[in-house]
Amino acid sequence: MTIYKAPLEDVRFILNDVIGASGLADMPDNKTVESVLGEAARFCEDVLLPLNVSGDFEGCSQDADGNVRVPKGFADAYADFCKGGWAGVSCGKECGGQGRPLLLNFIVSEMISGANMSFGLYPMLSHAAYKTIEKHASDELKKIYMPKLVEGTWTGTMCMTEAQAGSDLGLIRSMAEPLDDGSYKITGEKIMITAGDHDLAENIVHLVLARLPGALPGVRGISLFLVPKIFPDSGKRNAVRCSRLEDTTGIRASAVGAMAFDGAKGWLVGDAGKGVRCMFTMVNETRMMVGLQGIGVAEACYQNAAAYAKERVQMRSISGAKFPKQPADPILVHPDVRQKLLTMRSLTEGCRALALLAGREFDVSMRDADPKRRAKAADFVALMIPVVKAFGTDMGFDSANAALQIFGGHGYIRGNGIEQYLRDVRVAMIYEGTNGIQALDLVTRKMSQDYGRLLRSFVQPAVTFLAAEKDNKALANYRSVFLSAFNKFQMASLYVSTRGAVDPDEAGTGAADYLRILAYVALGFMWLKMARAAASKLAQGSAGTSFYEAKLRTADYFFSRMLPQVHAHYRALITGAKPIMDFPAEDF
Amino acid sequence: MTIYKAPLEDVRFILNDVIGASGLADMPDNKTVESVLGEAARFCEDVLLPLNVSGDFEGCSQDADGNVRVPKGFADAYADFCKGGWAGVSCGKECGGQGRPLLLNFIVSEMISGANMSFGLYPMLSHAAYKTIEKHASDELKKIYMPKLVEGTWTGTMCMTEAQAGSDLGLIRSMAEPLDDGSYKITGEKIMITAGDHDLAENIVHLVLARLPGALPGVRGISLFLVPKIFPDSGKRNAVRCSRLEDTTGIRASAVGAMAFDGAKGWLVGDAGKGVRCMFTMVNETRMMVGLQGIGVAEACYQNAAAYAKERVQMRSISGAKFPKQPADPILVHPDVRQKLLTMRSLTEGCRALALLAGREFDVSMRDADPKRRAKAADFVALMIPVVKAFGTDMGFDSANAALQIFGGHGYIRGNGIEQYLRDVRVAMIYEGTNGIQALDLVTRKMSQDYGRLLRSFVQPAVTFLAAEKDNKALANYRSVFLSAFNKFQMASLYVSTRGAVDPDEAGTGAADYLRILAYVALGFMWLKMARAAASKLAQGSAGTSFYEAKLRTADYFFSRMLPQVHAHYRALITGAKPIMDFPAEDF
Repeated sequence: MTIYKAPLEDVRFILNDVIGASGLADMPDNKTVESVLGEAARFCEDVLLPLNVSGDFEGCSQDADGNVRVPKGFADAYADFCKGGWAGVSCGKECGGQGRPLLLNFIVSEMISGANMSFGLYPMLSHAAYKTIEKHASDELKKIYMPKLVEGTWTGTMCMTEAQAGSDLGLIRSMAEPLDDGSYKITGEKIMITAGDHDLAENIVHLVLARLPGALPGVRGISLFLVPKIFPDSGKRNAVRCSRLEDTTGIRASAVGAMAFDGAKGWLVGDAGKGVRCMFTMVNETRMMVGLQGIGVAEACYQNAAAYAKERVQMRSISGAKFPKQPADPILVHPDVRQKLLTMRSLTEGCRALALLAGREFDVSMRDADPKRRAKAADFVALMIPVVKAFGTDMGFDSANAALQIFGGHGYIRGNGIEQYLRDVRVAMIYEGTNGIQALDLVTRKMSQDYGRLLRSFVQPAVTFLAAEKDNKALANYRSVFLSAFNKFQMASLYVSTRGAVDPDEAGTGAADYLRILAYVALGFMWLKMARAAASKLAQGSAGTSFYEAKLRTADYFFSRMLPQVHAHYRALITGAKPIMDFPAEDF
Repeated sequence: MTIYKAPLEDVRFILNDVIGASGLADMPDNKTVESVLGEAARFCEDVLLPLNVSGDFEGCSQDADGNVRVPKGFADAYADFCKGGWAGVSCGKECGGQGRPLLLNFIVSEMISGANMSFGLYPMLSHAAYKTIEKHASDELKKIYMPKLVEGTWTGTMCMTEAQAGSDLGLIRSMAEPLDDGSYKITGEKIMITAGDHDLAENIVHLVLARLPGALPGVRGISLFLVPKIFPDSGKRNAVRCSRLEDTTGIRASAVGAMAFDGAKGWLVGDAGKGVRCMFTMVNETRMMVGLQGIGVAEACYQNAAAYAKERVQMRSISGAKFPKQPADPILVHPDVRQKLLTMRSLTEGCRALALLAGREFDVSMRDADPKRRAKAADFVALMIPVVKAFGTDMGFDSANAALQIFGGHGYIRGNGIEQYLRDVRVAMIYEGTNGIQALDLVTRKMSQDYGRLLRSFVQPAVTFLAAEKDNKALANYRSVFLSAFNKFQMASLYVSTRGAVDPDEAGTGAADYLRILAYVALGFMWLKMARAAASKLAQGSAGTSFYEAKLRTADYFFSRMLPQVHAHYRALITGAKPIMDFPAEDF
């Protein structure tokens, strides 16, 4: 019932005209990029989309021996995915990957999530496991596991969470006991493990956080272990099994399981006591991916809601009948419906542009020849990751909610596919660090790194842009709105960093508002860049006039209705911590 | 797993110290009110709450003959409900009811929704049918149907929606053909009919909108018919059946069905062509009930989230360990968690106070001896109904969402009960007029009624209150915040009514923001009243100190963090319609 078209035109516009990605190391030429993205789009639209609603209905199941089966069609789709080489797009060539920039992987990730978020989690977790092994495992382990993960014939997991240890990994209790052969015996139960067990792949590679005997308490006592489901040499099963499928409200085609390690054999990855640090080396990448899940689902919700609003007739426009020959007007005539659609659209396109810019800088930070350029790019990525993750997923959820409202009662019925978006995307606000933790990461860890250094990676280019474009008439209407918001953002940064140094709770109570302020201003910067590019295309008389005109109209909406939200968040920010922190615990 | 305690202390405070309900006609004395509400609380906590999660899991089912069965335990609970006389609390004494003010019914409704929203829909629909029959049916029909609905042994439905006619009832196609005996033959399919078929009651009384032959097109051609499932005289089945159970994402223990009328026999209720008007005579009452569903669910979400936040330990406070002997601090120490809880709490308590004030005025508008007082009360009710409905349910949904975030991954698992709140309450933003339609009703129909007359019913008492309390030191900190918001509200009212007269689309694009402005200011007025009452109780040295202190602290939070939202909505309101209405339809 639902539709989804990969947003290729928008991606092309952002890559070529807004962020300029062609200079990236290992970026294929434009024609190749076109063809890669076109192929990805076809896979998402033709293979993944038709499985989205059926996958939700069927869900995963478990047989008497504990083996998990994915819904019908998923195994074939996953085989197609591997055959297309999608698992290794940005993996190293030395183990069979294509060595392309992560940026391409990010773009494809958004499309996959827009078509079928549940499916996308399998390769996402594998990729995370691959990266962790690449960075921290011994050469021996690398040689065995990396090529299989790159092929996709084996998949990976990240086994962190335990019942008592969610956001707080320091509370992990799983144990690892050294064996004589240099391996370890792992015991404990992990919960909510995505792709923990399933029948998509020949083998599953678990990366498991556990404690060595006598380890320090807290995070510093935790080490990382690689635990295969099946031993590559003997082909025998290891002592790890899915003890139950979690009954999640969404992403029901993702096999999310509790995993019991019952003396399973594993190998240390990285140094003892550095497990959390090892796993967190690729946290930026997975947080980016999760933000893109929000953006992908938001795109799908927008497309479905817009199509429905044009087709569903119900009541007359309040300014009189627009289609007097029909029994009623399409609901797109109603201001409230239009407003919801434009909010979804302006935020989705703005977030996409920001995520792809951060994605480009991600690659620059790893691949550029100039160490200074690399460092600056890394700063920008560090600053924007919490924004892409938290704002992207909040926005994805809000978009699903708005789409449901536009569909009305029909959106509330299972099988029409709309309420599923709401259930699916909801989890993205929780995993990979809750959105509250993202905000805290921003105002504490990120702000304290050489105060202002990270901020400069955003502020400097914005100021340079504004100066260079000061006579650009196409931006005249947006400039003052942007400057006013930008000014509030600077004041907010100062407030958070100075007040936060005096009273950490003050920074804490302002964290969510500060993240929103940065998000809106960063989106404002992207909308300035997009408006400049669209206006210049129109002035050149380029083809695709209606695309560029729509861009400018969406910019109008963003600057008049969205960016001013900054002021409300600023107001909330500076009210301070008192009314929040003074409330006695026993009165809650 | 979930908890729920009826908020008796808060209700008592609002009734006795804030709105003063003892003067209402037919209101029992305080002691009787206490005992009635205490009994309702026990029923909700002991009988309904334990069925909430199990009812969601089991859902309703349909046998081969199309008969619908409710989940286990619901029939017994419903029998208890009837035995307790709850179906007839505010029904007329002449047909077995207790003749009590609607206000009592509203309070009990909130509690029922907090414990088990799915259950609450059965009596809610019955009550609506009862009221419609009471007001519009012939004496003969009244005599047969009213006493059974008051007992609860029969239940009722409102059969409005068809696949092509949701918000727009003018598009209804069901037909009614006159028969020789003065009855009618009804043919058509209605969808999403709550309590359409089930095994709770001996009979079901459908109120059905349909067209007579040759009726005018649109709303003026629609008439209302009473169609029993079983004929009371013969005991035979009528030609109406549930053609399918709707697979709703929430309220799964409510039997929501598509109903096929296949030449079913029915009787005209009210005048021909006045069907929609007849059904809408009690729309204020049902919209109020739906708003209270939002408030009830929000209360339940707050209670669960607060309890979890005190018990779940995870990470340390950012200002240092608060419970150094425990492995981690309870998550209540985190500013973000506290902020979510206080938002839920201040809005829930504010909405409850507003809903009960509107509920009191509802009774005044029908029962007071003084016609002028009645008219003024009716104005206040008309003005506040869209606010209670739309803001109450939006707030219910936001509270469920915040509770889920506080529970984190555990909130995302079915069976823990938290994600169910989100699914259940979501429908309340759609039915009984979507929240977008509520906003439109406010800025078009309500504002145009003798411009300002309805507004005066709120503005006048607020101004009087402010003047009378100008030296009250307990309100000193709140006064300027309130006045600034109140001022913006007055400007917004002027803007909407003047600009709306020139360009209806302008009123339309501002509708949702205007409703929010009125909602926050009305809640601000209720918080001023609550703060005054709490401060005066404390000054008197009354018992229950901690309750009154917590009220004042919650007021602090409301005035510092919530009420200023008015300014953001005002800013959005005055940006006008252009960026929204100018977007070409084909570009969406």
